[in-house]
Amino acid sequence: MSDYDDQNVFARILRGEIPSHTVFEDDGFVVIMDAMPQAPGHCLVIPKAPSRNLLDADDAVLAKAIALVKKVARAAKTAFAADGINIMQYNEPAAGQTVFHLHFHVIPRHADVPLKPHTGQMAPAAELAASAGKLKAALEAL
Amino acid sequence: MSDYDDQNVFARILRGEIPSHTVFEDDGFVVIMDAMPQAPGHCLVIPKAPSRNLLDADDAVLAKAIALVKKVARAAKTAFAADGINIMQYNEPAAGQTVFHLHFHVIPRHADVPLKPHTGQMAPAAELAASAGKLKAALEAL
Repeated sequence: MSDYDDQNVFARILRGEIPSHTVFEDDGFVVIMDAMPQAPGHCLVIPKAPSRNLLDADDAVLAKAIALVKKVARAAKTAFAADGINIMQYNEPAAGQTVFHLHFHVIPRHADVPLKPHTGQMAPAAELAASAGKLKAALEAL
Repeated sequence: MSDYDDQNVFARILRGEIPSHTVFEDDGFVVIMDAMPQAPGHCLVIPKAPSRNLLDADDAVLAKAIALVKKVARAAKTAFAADGINIMQYNEPAAGQTVFHLHFHVIPRHADVPLKPHTGQMAPAAELAASAGKLKAALEAL
């Protein structure tokens, strides 16, 4: 955790200093919608425990994280009638990491629909709220 | 496991029917070099337990898998003097899955070097063997 800066966006979301479209929360994790989705339903599984990324994460946290990633992936496949799911986890800027708090991307995919690039523009709040609602319902129905 | 076909390439590698450049093996997992690397040092963490992908995987297997992914990522960062590491895990063809046995991609990244596309061409065996050797040494030195 030597390289962990607690002013990163996800730390601020976890502290409630920045709003997010929350799908799930328990003692150890939050699941939120990615504000710049690369496909409809693109969400993030974020452990509350501070680590910069996978490389300095605790194995016990990772064990719970990957089980939740699976659950969210299954729910997202149903909620967004997806044909497939990408799991992506980026470590350091050279690998595309932009927020330095461990997170897993869960991205619903449809056949022959390429991922959108990161535009730097947030999706409309109503769209993110609708996606969060769908995913939450699917997660609760699992 | 209803959609698991034991004739997939990784199942055949696990049975020793097809050769691979092995980095690590224990009772539960193998780590091999990706034969069509998207960057030097691109390797795969493969549980021996049969599952089609993440969606039907056992949580106990996933817990051990992600701990090994972290270990391999740390070793790969050292072995290939990487600036970052991408972890990718694909579920179903729409998400880019081509071999239907659960696997995690661990891809060393260097600043400003884009990922190579999947060419469909295998890398030279000598190159893969050299990468496997480097990664094995770094893993043993962790």
